[in-house]
Amino acid sequence: MQGLFADIDDHASSYLARLAQAASQPSIAATGQGIAEMAAMLEAMLVGVGFQVEQVPTAGSPVVFAAIETGAEKTLLFYNHYDVQPPEPLAEWESPPFEPTIRGGKFYARGAADNKGATIARLCAIESYLRVRKRLPVNLLWAVEGEEEVGSVHLHQFIAARKDVLQRAYGCIWEAGGKNAHERCEIALGCKGILYLELGAREAARDLHSALAATVASPVWRLLWALNNLKGPDGLVRIPGFYDDVLPPTPAQRQLVADWDYPEEQSRELYGIERFLDGLTGEELKTRLVFGPTCNVDGFHAGYGGPGSKTVLPCEAMAKVDFRLVPDQQVEVIVQQLRAHLDREGFADVEIAWWEGEAPSMGDPAHPFVQEVVRSAEAVYGHSPALLPLMAGTGPVHLLCGQFGIPITTAGVGYADSRVHAPNENIRTDDFFDHMRHVVTLLDRFEAHR
Amino acid sequence: MQGLFADIDDHASSYLARLAQAASQPSIAATGQGIAEMAAMLEAMLVGVGFQVEQVPTAGSPVVFAAIETGAEKTLLFYNHYDVQPPEPLAEWESPPFEPTIRGGKFYARGAADNKGATIARLCAIESYLRVRKRLPVNLLWAVEGEEEVGSVHLHQFIAARKDVLQRAYGCIWEAGGKNAHERCEIALGCKGILYLELGAREAARDLHSALAATVASPVWRLLWALNNLKGPDGLVRIPGFYDDVLPPTPAQRQLVADWDYPEEQSRELYGIERFLDGLTGEELKTRLVFGPTCNVDGFHAGYGGPGSKTVLPCEAMAKVDFRLVPDQQVEVIVQQLRAHLDREGFADVEIAWWEGEAPSMGDPAHPFVQEVVRSAEAVYGHSPALLPLMAGTGPVHLLCGQFGIPITTAGVGYADSRVHAPNENIRTDDFFDHMRHVVTLLDRFEAHR
Repeated sequence: MQGLFADIDDHASSYLARLAQAASQPSIAATGQGIAEMAAMLEAMLVGVGFQVEQVPTAGSPVVFAAIETGAEKTLLFYNHYDVQPPEPLAEWESPPFEPTIRGGKFYARGAADNKGATIARLCAIESYLRVRKRLPVNLLWAVEGEEEVGSVHLHQFIAARKDVLQRAYGCIWEAGGKNAHERCEIALGCKGILYLELGAREAARDLHSALAATVASPVWRLLWALNNLKGPDGLVRIPGFYDDVLPPTPAQRQLVADWDYPEEQSRELYGIERFLDGLTGEELKTRLVFGPTCNVDGFHAGYGGPGSKTVLPCEAMAKVDFRLVPDQQVEVIVQQLRAHLDREGFADVEIAWWEGEAPSMGDPAHPFVQEVVRSAEAVYGHSPALLPLMAGTGPVHLLCGQFGIPITTAGVGYADSRVHAPNENIRTDDFFDHMRHVVTLLDRFEAHR
Repeated sequence: MQGLFADIDDHASSYLARLAQAASQPSIAATGQGIAEMAAMLEAMLVGVGFQVEQVPTAGSPVVFAAIETGAEKTLLFYNHYDVQPPEPLAEWESPPFEPTIRGGKFYARGAADNKGATIARLCAIESYLRVRKRLPVNLLWAVEGEEEVGSVHLHQFIAARKDVLQRAYGCIWEAGGKNAHERCEIALGCKGILYLELGAREAARDLHSALAATVASPVWRLLWALNNLKGPDGLVRIPGFYDDVLPPTPAQRQLVADWDYPEEQSRELYGIERFLDGLTGEELKTRLVFGPTCNVDGFHAGYGGPGSKTVLPCEAMAKVDFRLVPDQQVEVIVQQLRAHLDREGFADVEIAWWEGEAPSMGDPAHPFVQEVVRSAEAVYGHSPALLPLMAGTGPVHLLCGQFGIPITTAGVGYADSRVHAPNENIRTDDFFDHMRHVVTLLDRFEAHR
């Protein structure tokens, strides 16, 4: 182990330079800027370390798919993404988003935490491992996609094309992770699903004078009332059957959440809120965050939004809604229940313009792979990480792993103030190197258990 | 009478040229463009006809206030406005909005119907009357404001300054009017009031990841639920006390509405709707349009409105709401009832950011002034006009006339396809000259009854 850690230390400045090289390259999936250049740079870096690499085309960004086949019994999978969020608002960055800068032990750049930091740390870890140990104790597969920030919309095409090889994986290290505000590592084993949809209502051919509200129906009210039928002020989703497939947490899962030191006060400060929803706190708060399905209005737009008054009866109204789903809720079932509910309640005129979804995927903390990751984290970080059966957000966990029964664990370089998706995104350089140490330690555990 | 009508005919082309001159001058209250120039042009035109004119300053556009004092017993008041709506969207105009064009007997320009057509027709009518009869049978006051299209926000300053002289008016010819789709003249005797307000809700310091909807309150839902407490799917306003001060229509008023040939089918076609609200038709439809108070959402904006999906828990939500009020509903009372209702229903967090309002004002069809206007309309148009106790829209009727007990009647140059506030606003030139004939006929009736 000392040899591995020493090699990482010896190469610290070149490893940081490699992260700076990757973070200097814009790669914005939302606009396409730099996507091809970033995929090419990553391919070259992976080849340099010794991977066999191909760019698997999709209708969107290519997936950079790398492999080191060793003939070992076990196959480990890494999942990362090389695309980043748009950097706007630019004026709020203290240093330009694509000109990486180290200040006070922190590395600032768009993508530092999400997700180039973890990607490059893993790359460097493999390089050090191969230099010191000469060979890997596992076969290593690595899928780095380029559309995570736009919903992994074409990842299914890659999976369909490389299904046979992907299914060999024993376990997957998911894209990102890190420490919470108590400096405790958090490892999630799954994620909630999502149903995202757009609802629309329309009435007249054009906006009318608001005096006509006396005799012409308002699509704004129609949509408002329809939404009111989705969730009431008690916070409960009103769609019959919505909760039917929700699995109650097991005692083991409850215990994980009980053991989780969620930084309640720091989170309130970070979000700028005086209290959590419904005054939730403690166990209840944590349970809701981990196991609670949601119904959220991402956007509602209709009519006049400028200053002062304009008297208008809008001719259309639009809302975007997302439901976070937990096991065993199913996207298609919820869509059908929603449509039937709206029809039954008299809102057949409110249209589901389109919808998309991802299934939830829950992990098992007892799985040997999970235990390997946990033990190696304990060895590196000196404490036992918090294990979360689900993360509150959503990713293609079910698509890439869940559907094949492959367990996942998150791990990465983030910390409480990483400002993911926001200006001044950053990581602490210590966390960058710790993630390398975690990866090589995990590989050595596989070596020991071969 | 023949002499008066002949004089109008003799000056037809110069009168049309004067309208074209007025309509060539942009005068957009919303931006201020051309307001001073238009006020100056109007002042010069009025002086040319023989009025004493002053521009009464307000904190906004000046009110052009003109008078011809004759020493007669009765004083007649005209109310018009020299400002117009912005002309956008420009691409939809078949000829430029401020380059008046006559095509097929129709005069196209922004302001043609609202409200320069009626203003210039009245000006020309007075010119012809003075040329033929040498003097007016009444004192004539004329208030032409420059902010009608932005809610007459400073008109109260003018009224406060000229209250004494305004109160002398026996009756007022209101700014506009015209014919419906059955080619029948419609004369309104009052208007609904309005309470316009902006509601707002906010929660976190910034937009958050929508996964946090599990534990952080959503201002979008808060505002949605608050609005749902204002009006339900049955169309009834849920604010306790809202309907308490609504006066039921009298039998005489009901008769007026029964006599009104509202062009139901043409209106449906014009608005592009298959049916009216709640399937209303016939008497019920007309009664709702004339006597029904409303609660309309003019705009609702929160969160993401672009294409596709963005998972966000918005940190704020905003809605603009207008209530059309009928006698004897009072703006301040409704605001208080609304605030108390929101508080009682648990929405103390939903803020009334600001509000403004105008009182309703109902007219009496039996008033001798109204009868003079109706008889002179019958003489000119050859049919009995429809009399409406209230118009569905709102104007400063109460402010300028209602509070002083001065009856109003609408009259003007519009027709069913005048496209007020829309591209290709137009009037028929015949209607322009008919309005002049109506005004001189009315003046002759005052002469006869002196």
